[in-house]
Amino acid sequence: MRTGVWLVGARGSVGVTAIVGLSALRAGLAETIGCVTELPHFREAGIPPLDALVVGGHDIVDTPLQKRAEELGAAGVVPADLVSAMSAEIAEVETDIRPLPGGATQADIAEAVMADLTEFRNRRALDELVVVNVASTEPQAPGDPAHDDLDTLRAALRQSGEVLPPSSLIAYAAFEAGCSFVDFTPSTGARLPALDSLARERRVPYAGSDGKTGETLVRSALAPMFAQRNLRVNSWSGTNLLGGGDGARLAEPGANAAKTQSKSKVLESVLGYRPQGVTRIDFVEELGDFKTAWDLISFSGFLGTRMRMELTWHGCDSALAAPLVLDLARLTAAAQHAGRVGPLGELGFFFKDPVGTAEASLADQWAGLIEFATGLAPA
Amino acid sequence: MRTGVWLVGARGSVGVTAIVGLSALRAGLAETIGCVTELPHFREAGIPPLDALVVGGHDIVDTPLQKRAEELGAAGVVPADLVSAMSAEIAEVETDIRPLPGGATQADIAEAVMADLTEFRNRRALDELVVVNVASTEPQAPGDPAHDDLDTLRAALRQSGEVLPPSSLIAYAAFEAGCSFVDFTPSTGARLPALDSLARERRVPYAGSDGKTGETLVRSALAPMFAQRNLRVNSWSGTNLLGGGDGARLAEPGANAAKTQSKSKVLESVLGYRPQGVTRIDFVEELGDFKTAWDLISFSGFLGTRMRMELTWHGCDSALAAPLVLDLARLTAAAQHAGRVGPLGELGFFFKDPVGTAEASLADQWAGLIEFATGLAPA
Amino acid sequence: MRTGVWLVGARGSVGVTAIVGLSALRAGLAETIGCVTELPHFREAGIPPLDALVVGGHDIVDTPLQKRAEELGAAGVVPADLVSAMSAEIAEVETDIRPLPGGATQADIAEAVMADLTEFRNRRALDELVVVNVASTEPQAPGDPAHDDLDTLRAALRQSGEVLPPSSLIAYAAFEAGCSFVDFTPSTGARLPALDSLARERRVPYAGSDGKTGETLVRSALAPMFAQRNLRVNSWSGTNLLGGGDGARLAEPGANAAKTQSKSKVLESVLGYRPQGVTRIDFVEELGDFKTAWDLISFSGFLGTRMRMELTWHGCDSALAAPLVLDLARLTAAAQHAGRVGPLGELGFFFKDPVGTAEASLADQWAGLIEFATGLAPA
Amino acid sequence: MRTGVWLVGARGSVGVTAIVGLSALRAGLAETIGCVTELPHFREAGIPPLDALVVGGHDIVDTPLQKRAEELGAAGVVPADLVSAMSAEIAEVETDIRPLPGGATQADIAEAVMADLTEFRNRRALDELVVVNVASTEPQAPGDPAHDDLDTLRAALRQSGEVLPPSSLIAYAAFEAGCSFVDFTPSTGARLPALDSLARERRVPYAGSDGKTGETLVRSALAPMFAQRNLRVNSWSGTNLLGGGDGARLAEPGANAAKTQSKSKVLESVLGYRPQGVTRIDFVEELGDFKTAWDLISFSGFLGTRMRMELTWHGCDSALAAPLVLDLARLTAAAQHAGRVGPLGELGFFFKDPVGTAEASLADQWAGLIEFATGLAPA
Repeated sequence: MRTGVWLVGARGSVGVTAIVGLSALRAGLAETIGCVTELPHFREAGIPPLDALVVGGHDIVDTPLQKRAEELGAAGVVPADLVSAMSAEIAEVETDIRPLPGGATQADIAEAVMADLTEFRNRRALDELVVVNVASTEPQAPGDPAHDDLDTLRAALRQSGEVLPPSSLIAYAAFEAGCSFVDFTPSTGARLPALDSLARERRVPYAGSDGKTGETLVRSALAPMFAQRNLRVNSWSGTNLLGGGDGARLAEPGANAAKTQSKSKVLESVLGYRPQGVTRIDFVEELGDFKTAWDLISFSGFLGTRMRMELTWHGCDSALAAPLVLDLARLTAAAQHAGRVGPLGELGFFFKDPVGTAEASLADQWAGLIEFATGLAPA
Repeated sequence: MRTGVWLVGARGSVGVTAIVGLSALRAGLAETIGCVTELPHFREAGIPPLDALVVGGHDIVDTPLQKRAEELGAAGVVPADLVSAMSAEIAEVETDIRPLPGGATQADIAEAVMADLTEFRNRRALDELVVVNVASTEPQAPGDPAHDDLDTLRAALRQSGEVLPPSSLIAYAAFEAGCSFVDFTPSTGARLPALDSLARERRVPYAGSDGKTGETLVRSALAPMFAQRNLRVNSWSGTNLLGGGDGARLAEPGANAAKTQSKSKVLESVLGYRPQGVTRIDFVEELGDFKTAWDLISFSGFLGTRMRMELTWHGCDSALAAPLVLDLARLTAAAQHAGRVGPLGELGFFFKDPVGTAEASLADQWAGLIEFATGLAPA
Repeated sequence: MRTGVWLVGARGSVGVTAIVGLSALRAGLAETIGCVTELPHFREAGIPPLDALVVGGHDIVDTPLQKRAEELGAAGVVPADLVSAMSAEIAEVETDIRPLPGGATQADIAEAVMADLTEFRNRRALDELVVVNVASTEPQAPGDPAHDDLDTLRAALRQSGEVLPPSSLIAYAAFEAGCSFVDFTPSTGARLPALDSLARERRVPYAGSDGKTGETLVRSALAPMFAQRNLRVNSWSGTNLLGGGDGARLAEPGANAAKTQSKSKVLESVLGYRPQGVTRIDFVEELGDFKTAWDLISFSGFLGTRMRMELTWHGCDSALAAPLVLDLARLTAAAQHAGRVGPLGELGFFFKDPVGTAEASLADQWAGLIEFATGLAPA
Repeated sequence: MRTGVWLVGARGSVGVTAIVGLSALRAGLAETIGCVTELPHFREAGIPPLDALVVGGHDIVDTPLQKRAEELGAAGVVPADLVSAMSAEIAEVETDIRPLPGGATQADIAEAVMADLTEFRNRRALDELVVVNVASTEPQAPGDPAHDDLDTLRAALRQSGEVLPPSSLIAYAAFEAGCSFVDFTPSTGARLPALDSLARERRVPYAGSDGKTGETLVRSALAPMFAQRNLRVNSWSGTNLLGGGDGARLAEPGANAAKTQSKSKVLESVLGYRPQGVTRIDFVEELGDFKTAWDLISFSGFLGTRMRMELTWHGCDSALAAPLVLDLARLTAAAQHAGRVGPLGELGFFFKDPVGTAEASLADQWAGLIEFATGLAPA
């Protein structure tokens, strides 16, 4: 099953890390650390092997992939020697990166995107093509009646003006082109009723949103412990310090609001109540891709005795995200191949704010993922 | 179902906290925080209600319960005003505490213990009686051939000398008296082939060992996250600082070895390999019951990129342990009532080093516990 | 030297803790922990002994001191049994607390305040009277030309409207009444050219501002280490979580800005440059007076090698602040007695944002304090 | 003033980092971060410039410097590209590294060492030569009467057997050869009465011991804060996790004892009492040179209110130590040039366990260092 992975934001840190890493894995120069679908649990699931993946993508910037990869090598996000060793493979992917098209109306833009997707699928003889949004986080988009109805939306796209935020326009184009869609960011993406209708009309699945790579990942593993032990979480506060492109974007109030709202859901879902405390994201440029998150959990035990837990996470965001992008592309392609349509709630394991499910506990998400993958296996 | 809870080490911090807390819960002066079996999941399980519990116990010291409770109130382990309010209830339990008997041979001691248990069961008209070991941690006991065979053991107990460590002698007496047994400490307790034979002969269940209340609890919640994300844990190091009675005991090399060995199992079980790093327990008297554990986890992600996580746990040991003692007594009594015999692996959720199961992931232990409790419900 | 301590905000947590603590110290029921001026270094400095202090004050609320003290006892800020034992002493201070006066113009209010101060000084036969602002933090006050010139200010105060923020009006009244003034908060207080002129005209000293009790205290001790070792601090980020009255106030954007600005000065002063990173204050009500501050310091060493330091401070704000209020009152009274006039830069040891000095290193502030106190000693 | 720096253990991580770094600094390829004596305070002090330093040394291993430097580059201790760029300079230093000599008696070994030192000094036309011990930590040496008297020692050295531990034998040889000596390790080195006599006889200065690069550095900056604020430190516990060569050595009980004893002195010196708590060093091989230290400080404030502070230090040991080795060589050479003899207590700023001074507060050590350096300046 030849599987295309179309990265929207291919020249960003996550995209480039995925491209370098996929090349290195195929060349046998790296281990499969961080790749969930390489665990033994997925061996029989009928998901496309790493060798079957073909990467292309869109970006609004035109810095060469090789240059971006070297920057990541210098920053310690990927090993610098891998970047040199993989230069031929990186150059090959470079030929499949297109500038993000413009147009007079959003309908025109969508058609140009669809043309790029179709051309890539045909030229590379792909069985499935998954579009993955790894672009920077958008500000929260204003509501619009056209978001709720597909016909209204189609008409509105032909007018001038911006009825869909960029991530949703990409999802629209992907669906129209018969591609599945994964939103790795907290942007709106496919999460509009009109787009859900379109996905069902075109019989494609989609997944999202906001890849779970740090503080929220840990929270989804840890919060169930407090619930299961009947401990009362009085407050759970968090601070996230990060630099890099996404850090700068998240420092803008609109995008920050989108992200912190996505982050706050897991605690309330798991605990059944909302503890006090806020979750902050602050931009500290010099930290680059190496994010630090600190959480303080203040809780009560038997007879009200007060206790505390603290945790610090020093993670490399792109190194955590990139293998999940590959996992998601493989799982979504397999789901499409197996005839799955609409939101893939069973992929909630990968997301801060999973679409199509209310499950927020990591362990339950894991159990759901294994069951899902097993069910995809050919009989 | 009137259920006796016989605390071996009843005057210790955990025992006294359980006694004060149970009284306060019944009087409606405290919430059920920390009580696992008060969660909605257990509502239909047919476990004895808190009102059905009757507490007695053994201890080698004779400090009055009220005095010990006041000490815990002054230290902030239990609310000081609850201790005053519950003085009548505490005095009532005091009448059921017996000195730990002595004897010429261990068989004599066992018989005296059995007599105390039987007298308590009869006088209080109990349907079930669960013996719970909350005494201080013993040094690791030397092996003995009599541990492997019940007949040999029975003969050896009639000789002078100590063939069983104290915790195992209690388990022996409990089983002989038809009581179930729970070991909340890392001591040997019922974990000898000869005692397992005895439990099966007498058709009683047992559970253990070493209540999971802090660092190991967190590890069992968190380690699966690393495994499921295919992240490689290079080292996982831990430091535990605690005072209090158990802290002093654990500072002794023998007991320390017993405890740190119990602590190290969870990582290897969950990850499938043993990361580098050691786990320390250090006695810091002034910290009292308020334990601090610090863990450093050094791990690798995609393409080998190195990352770190740290966590600190400031917990009150007795406040974390006491409600679990009540939970375990209720669940074990219900299991005995339902005809369960031998090790209760399904109670592994509560233990650092669970008997009768290899399951070490907290989420999987939780799922097993719910299934177990549901299965105990009368048809 | 009978010394009056007039607390503006006497019924707040800091004020009440100081009142209870002073009573307990005199009664021999508490040790002098936290009292800087009780260290041997100050033995010869001629500062008034604790027995010579007489406390009064203003407040806008009228909750009885005893009730506020009991609340602090329940919250663990002061020992509950001390509150009971000191009820007579607390009642005695209660007789010297006045409601903060109102008036048609700010000049009228100032005169009423002066009358309260003068009455207290005369009735209690005080040699010196120090007014200490321990009220909640004000929003940053807008500038006004009258702030720069005493004559203009005096004229403006007689008009309707608010030319001075409340803390500055108190400083004005204190100076006019011949009292020295200490600002323990980040409010404007005496830090206006017109008020400085007034202090010099009336020949009284003043000190401030913003008592250094947690994160900034640690920063002033630690930042010199990085400077002296020629390590480059790339970013220094901080998060402060606190509840309590001041926490709520600091959650308001205006007051928050005043406080975080005060906090950011120490790093730039000590290091000679401003590292990246922001300092946050977040209100988490349930934490009450027990503040947690977390700092992440990212720094470079030899050949640019990157390293990190983290620190967490779990402090009880009022317990840290209250003894410093007593210290400052004693030192300022002694300074006034010794003829010191204007800003007391030598008290910078106590403040986040010291007036009258640019010294920000704790060690240098300490050396300056000792020299200052020694110089106050009678020949 | 041409100044020789003779590194005992030149092929170790600290030695090699110093060699690579000195080359890079001279070539203008690195900034002077981490170099204390490059701060403006030392500009007038008459210490030899970096260009005047000439490095040689002894080692028991013979791995080429270039290979060791590449290993450090791969581990991220020094920038890999600097290692390539400096290969000619590293090769130049390689010509001045000698194998540590053997001999029939310790007197013979000392003479061979002296011959190496003298040959280096003459061939390189050095004005001063400083011997710096950067070898692995020795086990604590047993006492010997010959340690107390120089004549007895000289006689004993001519016998077979080992009267001096290796570090002390080096100090002996250095002094006999008219060289000054710096012990950067916690080994015995020059800290024996007989060797002090020898240093005075030969009119050379010496300094030590145990470079202060992490936990103890922070403690010496922070502990004075608690003392100056009259806060009572109830316990101060520490855990150090490190890999690398010194980590392995420190895992041996004897060396571990030497190091933890050196670490514990600072708190008692600064606070005036010994708080509870232990300081641990544990070997975690995979951490390599990147040491993590965690400290928990439990303290009481006003009226006994209990509070806590925690700190974590993630430092690169060799990157922290190497510039201090250069600083110490420059300062000691200047001191010798200025006629200073015996222990240089004023260099305590650099050491965990400073010889010749009882001063343990970092700020006071800093003040002493500046005064010392200023005093060395030519009139």
